[in-house]
Amino acid sequence: MVSKPRTAWFRPKDFDMFFTSVSATTVSSMSTIEMEVFSHTQLIIMTILMFVGGEVFTSFLGLQFARSKFLKNCPSSDQNSVTLVNLNHSVPKCTNPVNQIELDLEKEKPETNTLDENGNKCLGFDSLKYSSIKFLGYVVLGYLFVVHLIGSTLVSLYISLFPSARKVLKDKGLETLTFSVFTTVSSFTNCGFVPTNENMIVFKKNSGLLLLLIPQILMGNTLYPPCLLFLIWVLKKTTKREEFRYILMNYGDMGYGHLLSGPHALLLAMTVFGFILIQFLLLCSMEWSSQVMDGLNSYQKIIGSLFQTVNSRHTGESVFDLSTISSAILVLFVVMMYLPPCTTFIPPKLHEKVSDNGKQSRKKTFMECLIFSQLSYLVIFIILICITERQKMKEDPLNFNVLNVTVEVISAYGNVGFTTGYSCKRQLKPDSLCIDTWYGFVGRWSTMGKSILIIVMFFGRLKKFSMKGGQAWNLS
Amino acid sequence: MVSKPRTAWFRPKDFDMFFTSVSATTVSSMSTIEMEVFSHTQLIIMTILMFVGGEVFTSFLGLQFARSKFLKNCPSSDQNSVTLVNLNHSVPKCTNPVNQIELDLEKEKPETNTLDENGNKCLGFDSLKYSSIKFLGYVVLGYLFVVHLIGSTLVSLYISLFPSARKVLKDKGLETLTFSVFTTVSSFTNCGFVPTNENMIVFKKNSGLLLLLIPQILMGNTLYPPCLLFLIWVLKKTTKREEFRYILMNYGDMGYGHLLSGPHALLLAMTVFGFILIQFLLLCSMEWSSQVMDGLNSYQKIIGSLFQTVNSRHTGESVFDLSTISSAILVLFVVMMYLPPCTTFIPPKLHEKVSDNGKQSRKKTFMECLIFSQLSYLVIFIILICITERQKMKEDPLNFNVLNVTVEVISAYGNVGFTTGYSCKRQLKPDSLCIDTWYGFVGRWSTMGKSILIIVMFFGRLKKFSMKGGQAWNLS
Ligand SMILES: [K+]
Ligand SMILES: [K+]
Repeated sequence: MVSKPRTAWFRPKDFDMFFTSVSATTVSSMSTIEMEVFSHTQLIIMTILMFVGGEVFTSFLGLQFARSKFLKNCPSSDQNSVTLVNLNHSVPKCTNPVNQIELDLEKEKPETNTLDENGNKCLGFDSLKYSSIKFLGYVVLGYLFVVHLIGSTLVSLYISLFPSARKVLKDKGLETLTFSVFTTVSSFTNCGFVPTNENMIVFKKNSGLLLLLIPQILMGNTLYPPCLLFLIWVLKKTTKREEFRYILMNYGDMGYGHLLSGPHALLLAMTVFGFILIQFLLLCSMEWSSQVMDGLNSYQKIIGSLFQTVNSRHTGESVFDLSTISSAILVLFVVMMYLPPCTTFIPPKLHEKVSDNGKQSRKKTFMECLIFSQLSYLVIFIILICITERQKMKEDPLNFNVLNVTVEVISAYGNVGFTTGYSCKRQLKPDSLCIDTWYGFVGRWSTMGKSILIIVMFFGRLKKFSMKGGQAWNLS
Repeated sequence: MVSKPRTAWFRPKDFDMFFTSVSATTVSSMSTIEMEVFSHTQLIIMTILMFVGGEVFTSFLGLQFARSKFLKNCPSSDQNSVTLVNLNHSVPKCTNPVNQIELDLEKEKPETNTLDENGNKCLGFDSLKYSSIKFLGYVVLGYLFVVHLIGSTLVSLYISLFPSARKVLKDKGLETLTFSVFTTVSSFTNCGFVPTNENMIVFKKNSGLLLLLIPQILMGNTLYPPCLLFLIWVLKKTTKREEFRYILMNYGDMGYGHLLSGPHALLLAMTVFGFILIQFLLLCSMEWSSQVMDGLNSYQKIIGSLFQTVNSRHTGESVFDLSTISSAILVLFVVMMYLPPCTTFIPPKLHEKVSDNGKQSRKKTFMECLIFSQLSYLVIFIILICITERQKMKEDPLNFNVLNVTVEVISAYGNVGFTTGYSCKRQLKPDSLCIDTWYGFVGRWSTMGKSILIIVMFFGRLKKFSMKGGQAWNLS
């Protein structure tokens, strides 16, 4: 990132350059400088950084590393699989509940069982496993290549077909190819940088472009495990190769965290779409006729909202100005941002199927369930109050801001009673009838908001924390 | 709460009356109306509501309920203790780690063991246990009575001795006795209501009064278990009665959640003082010469800060105006408010002593530990950034507010890239040199703040969520 910036009049500080490199490598897309100051060389360097830092590529490297280790030492099959899993440090452990669901499938794999029992000879058994891991690597690499190729081509095609998009790039002095590749890599790796200052806001009327990017965003992160599984399944059906069958049967032994069981992948996909739906409904209902979506027709509003909600899980590209968006949506986005890509809703029914050591873990997981619920209830309450007080939050932002609401809610939940209060001085449009009083901030809320706080106070008083909070901290 | 308010010119809405009743009963002290509108009758009703809703009294009722049930059915001793624990719904389960620490003590109680083995006859064994529970009830009741009596007397005495305090009450038309009893009950139950509009701010220079209330606040909630244990220990030493010995030996069987083992009570007390120390240091270092503590001398500042930090765990009485306090302290208060009174730091060493089923739970608790750590790290980062940007947060509150910082931090942690941005329009004191740009909010931060965000991005990228998030939700 020491190349010369494109716009000569502004030379970013070295620290900001470093910040941007880190941001690209960690696929964060937090920015401290405008994007249009970067030269073409710098954009290409950033493309490479994003590609290398992306989840799919790093997990591919992890897989290759595991394969090379696998080749070196050849212990018994059982230990081997453990080694593989442990080696694979760069892969997030999406596989926690896999072992449990796996138990259901275990009965249905006689072939591998025979191999397990008869193939104790190091060479005989390992060769299939080794070639399966090799094939898995090829599949991941092919997936990476195909998605990037098709994605870049489609984006390029869109820009050359639609004059409005072409004009934007021309005005900003961006080449179509650079923009297409950069945007595709950024979307697929879920980095979220776009070489325009305005991020995607400048393209908010180009619904076609947004529709092209949405699948790339999903395929590169939250929906990657289901897509990968589907691809392997298709390859198994078409090529009928033993390796693909082996991969699907022994997904847990591959040492690849993104390889899930069928049911788990399905639940993951459902979770992803569920989250998108919730955010989409809230965003549309809150902002449909607000200034955020000003100047858009209904179709553009829908696609824009969809794009924005798909981005909130990880990517972070924006078509709307978040500073003008309702606080309620902002808080929901905060929650969504907090959730890792692997977040999956697994109904208790599926957990119950697990027969062995299910009894020991049942109670613990119920406790953990409560921990999560406590926090999520609080967030829900904060969001609800942001909704009931949204008018005042817009007109009187210094008094009605989310922090004050949060303080009030947590205060009520902990039955504390702290309040930030309300000050007439802080009003942006001074109201001559406003009189400073000494009661809490909640006194200025609507009856609806106060009712919610009553529920919060009861909720807080009656909760009787029955959960345990970690090894060292006992919250109960 | 249908009595006539004291100030005739203002009649609170019925809903606000209902809100205040709920607030008093749940010992929350959230308020929607000023306190001075209440008549003496209403203040007395509120005193009763607070007393009845307080933790010590409700737990005493739970104990009496358990005792009456105990008298009715007389099963074998083991089942009995289970019944007792289960019956006691109104007592928060402070007892989770007790069972583990208990194991250490088990070896040291030959007397009770003999009773357990030889006392299988229903009557012989139960009579001691029953009378122990009865004695425990007396101790709790005595504790309640003595603390309230001494507390009220001391507060009354203070007011009659110090003209400045007497003048405040006279100006507000409050009787000394009503004020003393109301404030003592409110402090001991940790409700936090004070019959003055300004809460304790009006007494911020009466350090003596604050010093009288601090022990009442601690003894009624966070330090109640250690105090109770100490009282029983003193009674055992002085009266040498078998019942107190039995209570101390079989604290887990008493069915009283606030009865802890010695080590646990000690750790609880250390946690309480640790939290107070942390808050006290932060509050003093951030606000020592700010307008919050304006007009106070050093002694008053120290006592005021101590009072404020003691209140943040549950009580919620204030000597400082929270709306002018630094956001960093506010966020720390949010965390403190969230933590239940029983929160105890138990070093892993003590957990490791547990021999049976320690292995199964080891891994789970480590996972849970991680959950807690993730959240707490994030809060720490937010607080740090509030500290580095505190100057701007004061001057430019619409851009630099905690929500925006939180969005930025969570965004960096989740490697998302959403930002609320920065708008020159939102500046309260317009800066003619300010130019709107398209880069993120973080671009306006100091180098220190940006460095912290870099750490957050790395932390987010490298975390590899290894924890499990509850039964139904898998975050990993
Ligand atoms: K309180
Ligand atoms: K991102």
